[in-house]
Amino acid sequence: MTSKPIAAVILAAGKGTRMKSDLHKVLHPIAGRAMLLHLVDTVAALEPEKTVVVVGAGRDQVEDAIEPHGIAVAHQAEQLGTGHAVAQAEDALTGFDGDVLILYGDVPLVSTDTMRAMLDRLHADDAPATVVLGFRPEDPAAYGRVIVEPGTDRIARMVEFKDASPEERAETLCNSGLMAVRSTDLFALLAKVGNDNAAGEYYLPDIVMLAAGEDRASAVIETREEEVAGVNSRAELARVEASWQQRRRAEAMAAGATLIAPETVWFSYDTAIGRDVVIEPNVFFGPGVTIADGVTIHGFSHIEGATVGAGASVGPYARLRPGAVLGEKAKIGNFVEMKKAVLGPGAKASHLTYLGDAEVGAGANIGAGTITCNYDGFFKYRTRIGEGAFIGSNSALVAPVSIGDGAIVGAGSVVTRDVEADALALARGEQVAKPGRAKRFREMMAAKKKAGR
Amino acid sequence: MTSKPIAAVILAAGKGTRMKSDLHKVLHPIAGRAMLLHLVDTVAALEPEKTVVVVGAGRDQVEDAIEPHGIAVAHQAEQLGTGHAVAQAEDALTGFDGDVLILYGDVPLVSTDTMRAMLDRLHADDAPATVVLGFRPEDPAAYGRVIVEPGTDRIARMVEFKDASPEERAETLCNSGLMAVRSTDLFALLAKVGNDNAAGEYYLPDIVMLAAGEDRASAVIETREEEVAGVNSRAELARVEASWQQRRRAEAMAAGATLIAPETVWFSYDTAIGRDVVIEPNVFFGPGVTIADGVTIHGFSHIEGATVGAGASVGPYARLRPGAVLGEKAKIGNFVEMKKAVLGPGAKASHLTYLGDAEVGAGANIGAGTITCNYDGFFKYRTRIGEGAFIGSNSALVAPVSIGDGAIVGAGSVVTRDVEADALALARGEQVAKPGRAKRFREMMAAKKKAGR
Amino acid sequence: MTSKPIAAVILAAGKGTRMKSDLHKVLHPIAGRAMLLHLVDTVAALEPEKTVVVVGAGRDQVEDAIEPHGIAVAHQAEQLGTGHAVAQAEDALTGFDGDVLILYGDVPLVSTDTMRAMLDRLHADDAPATVVLGFRPEDPAAYGRVIVEPGTDRIARMVEFKDASPEERAETLCNSGLMAVRSTDLFALLAKVGNDNAAGEYYLPDIVMLAAGEDRASAVIETREEEVAGVNSRAELARVEASWQQRRRAEAMAAGATLIAPETVWFSYDTAIGRDVVIEPNVFFGPGVTIADGVTIHGFSHIEGATVGAGASVGPYARLRPGAVLGEKAKIGNFVEMKKAVLGPGAKASHLTYLGDAEVGAGANIGAGTITCNYDGFFKYRTRIGEGAFIGSNSALVAPVSIGDGAIVGAGSVVTRDVEADALALARGEQVAKPGRAKRFREMMAAKKKAGR
Repeated sequence: MTSKPIAAVILAAGKGTRMKSDLHKVLHPIAGRAMLLHLVDTVAALEPEKTVVVVGAGRDQVEDAIEPHGIAVAHQAEQLGTGHAVAQAEDALTGFDGDVLILYGDVPLVSTDTMRAMLDRLHADDAPATVVLGFRPEDPAAYGRVIVEPGTDRIARMVEFKDASPEERAETLCNSGLMAVRSTDLFALLAKVGNDNAAGEYYLPDIVMLAAGEDRASAVIETREEEVAGVNSRAELARVEASWQQRRRAEAMAAGATLIAPETVWFSYDTAIGRDVVIEPNVFFGPGVTIADGVTIHGFSHIEGATVGAGASVGPYARLRPGAVLGEKAKIGNFVEMKKAVLGPGAKASHLTYLGDAEVGAGANIGAGTITCNYDGFFKYRTRIGEGAFIGSNSALVAPVSIGDGAIVGAGSVVTRDVEADALALARGEQVAKPGRAKRFREMMAAKKKAGR
Repeated sequence: MTSKPIAAVILAAGKGTRMKSDLHKVLHPIAGRAMLLHLVDTVAALEPEKTVVVVGAGRDQVEDAIEPHGIAVAHQAEQLGTGHAVAQAEDALTGFDGDVLILYGDVPLVSTDTMRAMLDRLHADDAPATVVLGFRPEDPAAYGRVIVEPGTDRIARMVEFKDASPEERAETLCNSGLMAVRSTDLFALLAKVGNDNAAGEYYLPDIVMLAAGEDRASAVIETREEEVAGVNSRAELARVEASWQQRRRAEAMAAGATLIAPETVWFSYDTAIGRDVVIEPNVFFGPGVTIADGVTIHGFSHIEGATVGAGASVGPYARLRPGAVLGEKAKIGNFVEMKKAVLGPGAKASHLTYLGDAEVGAGANIGAGTITCNYDGFFKYRTRIGEGAFIGSNSALVAPVSIGDGAIVGAGSVVTRDVEADALALARGEQVAKPGRAKRFREMMAAKKKAGR
Repeated sequence: MTSKPIAAVILAAGKGTRMKSDLHKVLHPIAGRAMLLHLVDTVAALEPEKTVVVVGAGRDQVEDAIEPHGIAVAHQAEQLGTGHAVAQAEDALTGFDGDVLILYGDVPLVSTDTMRAMLDRLHADDAPATVVLGFRPEDPAAYGRVIVEPGTDRIARMVEFKDASPEERAETLCNSGLMAVRSTDLFALLAKVGNDNAAGEYYLPDIVMLAAGEDRASAVIETREEEVAGVNSRAELARVEASWQQRRRAEAMAAGATLIAPETVWFSYDTAIGRDVVIEPNVFFGPGVTIADGVTIHGFSHIEGATVGAGASVGPYARLRPGAVLGEKAKIGNFVEMKKAVLGPGAKASHLTYLGDAEVGAGANIGAGTITCNYDGFFKYRTRIGEGAFIGSNSALVAPVSIGDGAIVGAGSVVTRDVEADALALARGEQVAKPGRAKRFREMMAAKKKAGR
């Protein structure tokens, strides 16, 4: 509905003491992505004119994380309350005239739809000065309450749980802290907020009370509890992660993937999964994965930064690292690792193999125990294996090296020079036999053992 | 009680659109076996004279799946309702005179006991014309209701939720759709069912109403909600899988197996587990597995088509594929794969090994990194390792090849010819040393690196 | 409060039939440690003068398990009830004058705090003769009830569920069976307990009734249901394990570790985890593990008896066995096994490697597929790899062998003799090429295949 310019202020100045971490709280990841960046992504869908993150301690860490996103940072040097924190964003918003969303870096899962609903409400006919995001938790516990005029979404008052009367505590609508406010109102109202309270802090909710006092009624919209879950400890981090994963798993199934045990599949924020994909129990997706239609991912697979073509088979125990690309109907089997490697259509590496910095042609067969020796302690080198080539088991391919189309490498070879197309290469020792020697060895060792060595 | 001939009609004509799959809905597996085949197995325990599956779209897929089971297929070309679907089975049941069970391919977990109870009820003194399977779900939601005469199991009426009055909705007995009907009644009643309704469909429940109208009272027996859970989406598929697994885990524990974390062990429909078996967290069983008494299965193991002897030790990270057989007290350790391979009593393959198409004698020791090279791109070949043989680490055994009893293969060998009993075989390069060369290499590479390569 | 001497009597004479196990029930492990030893550890924190375990069948197994702990064993030859079982401890407590805790070997999770609270209550001013541990289960079901005088903790009576009146059953305080009793009272009261009941058994709770009858009022303290959960079946074993793990995971998170999916991390009774440790889904800790600060443990890792230095990286698919020690910032990657091996600071073994009985110097790089060949079928030998050494991929190091500082081993080598510092060692076959041979082989095999072999 609204087409006013939008800005977002994300508060991230809390100390996060209960996380017991050297990492800034808002940088702890959910589904492989920093909490703060989840918010940044969600806000980005609204095409904001400006996004400002208000940071206290740990400013450098946060700046490094958001640097690629072109986002402003405001610094709150002293911890003087949420109202004070938002006020720090004023400079960064100089010249901005529009709607401001106030978000929290440790409340990462609020959706674009919810944000949009808040902004739309700000522009309804009654033009409220602030829109507060409320929710009705299963257990309202110690949340602050939002008391509305009966039958409306107008806020009569908001009250901290500790200050609430029994009647107020009986209300189930709670305050998430998130708000939408017109920029013209926001800083005018903030300027009137005092710190005449026990903690000597400037409280952001006071602007709602001030708006009500000016007869510029505020309003509330509601959301699901999961969207406004906050993270103040590692246990809450795990809970928000679980909530995210549960939603994502349901989406994957609704889109036509079979998850035999959904609770044991972990997606990343950007995992893309096709139709008729079957995922066995215990699969972990790191960032940057795309799985095409009809792929089977066997259990105990660990996949990040990989692209898997239609009908391919992965695992069990496949480890696909960034840059792994599987062609159609290619196969990566058990105890196989790929990194910056392309496996052509129909090619197979079924067992105990490392393919690093490699290109494998269509239909090639990589025997069990094959290792691409891609590193000399200083540089990485590439291995090229041609179409239809056959690499015998337990071979070492010392890169840079090229195996031609249709070539065969004998089992147990150490290949240090290129092999031309259709050639057979062998690089292994001659077999010698020493009859009876094993028996004599056993007798000798048994005697040693008996003698106590 | 009853000894009348039995037939089963399994309806599988639904489109299954919400599965978003190219695979027919009833062929999606639960515990490693197509839903439809779960029903076929359960029915088989009743020794039916005839089983008919009614199929619409995807007929070929279903026919392929049931082909080995000697089951008739009836085709429902048009989707004209469940009554019409059952009517399609009439030809296949020509000449059959007995009791007919009406089942649903997407309701796979109904038990033999429940089926028998339905059939038995059909032959009680009051000889009802139809027996309906009811259940009382935790949340009756939008299920159709079964209204019985107070204090009896006689059906007064059945009513779709959408047509139900508030009083009817307050009833908690719901209709599973499953029925038992005498064949003589079934098709006579079906012939009277009309399609004078909004959808223009022939509804199967109408035969119950017709029976009641003829004063041939119908009856209901009840079952647990889990037994009649239906599968219309991948999420429901996952829920039915979870329900099956939970029951199976409880059975395994009751029979004397320790599951440290039961919720992370996945059984197949036919997994057989002994007593004093210990299963660590995260073990997946595919079809065809038998585990004898006293076996320990360490975590992260993936086992299918395998037989494991008493007191054996498996994993962690063991991958046993079809045809893997472990003798008593044999050991398969981490990152080891077996396929069509027999490991004799007390023999060990502890680390990073592939045993394919192989026989290993009692007490033999297979060193870390051993690979049986069983494939030349065209055929598979066998490796035979004798009793008490010792295969040095990182060896490649190029099949077909035979290592005699008590023989030793030196580490790092590539064995291409048979080794006789008690002999020592070596097949590797000579070691040469180039003093100072590593240092010079490092200096050269460091310089290259500095120069930007 | 109390400073009286303490003794513990642990009853472990039950048959444990429902476990269906050859292992004594109290020796089944929770978190990697026998249930009985959990109790022994917890009691040890109270510095008892004496601990007595009362055993019936399976005495030898129990004696073997507690042998290292200097604990007395009393034998209950006949199963004549819990009162009779405690009486068997009298001899072992000859000369002991103090407080006796009565515990159950199959109730393993009761805490030191709870034990102390029971002992303290025994010494309050009213000096009760017995202190009973009560609890209020979510579902009181068939537990015996403790009826107290209103508003006090004085026991009016205790009643078995089967003998309880409806009013008594409505009480929610249940009897855990655990007690604290002064030694002088204990055996005097026990001597008065009769066996005039249907089973002909001597019931321990009768001493509480006798104490009440002597006007020496007994008292009750309460605990959480989890602490007094008993184990009579493998399903209950799994439930107690789950309860233990849930508590331990919460502790790890509270102390500053990230568990992405807490429900998939299994700790051992003695696992020590630092701050800012990140644990991906699916990690299993066996006994004896210490993880320093800042370590990342990737998924699917199986770790026991290992020490991991600060900032190290482990897994995915790392298997650390007893004696594995990782220095600061060392790295163990996928499909790597370590056993009795030390990896120096900053050293790396990233893929498909077995390090057994080995020492690896700081900064060394162990290539993919490296195997330490530490076993000759009779003895184990050590491998030493110097600082900054580089082991080329797919090498076999045949121990005993030493690779000097800064040495390089060429890929695919089988090293059987020591390599001096800064030297380059190669031990592999020469590469030979046979042009066109692969093509001819393919043609021949294709013809064979066509001919049906």
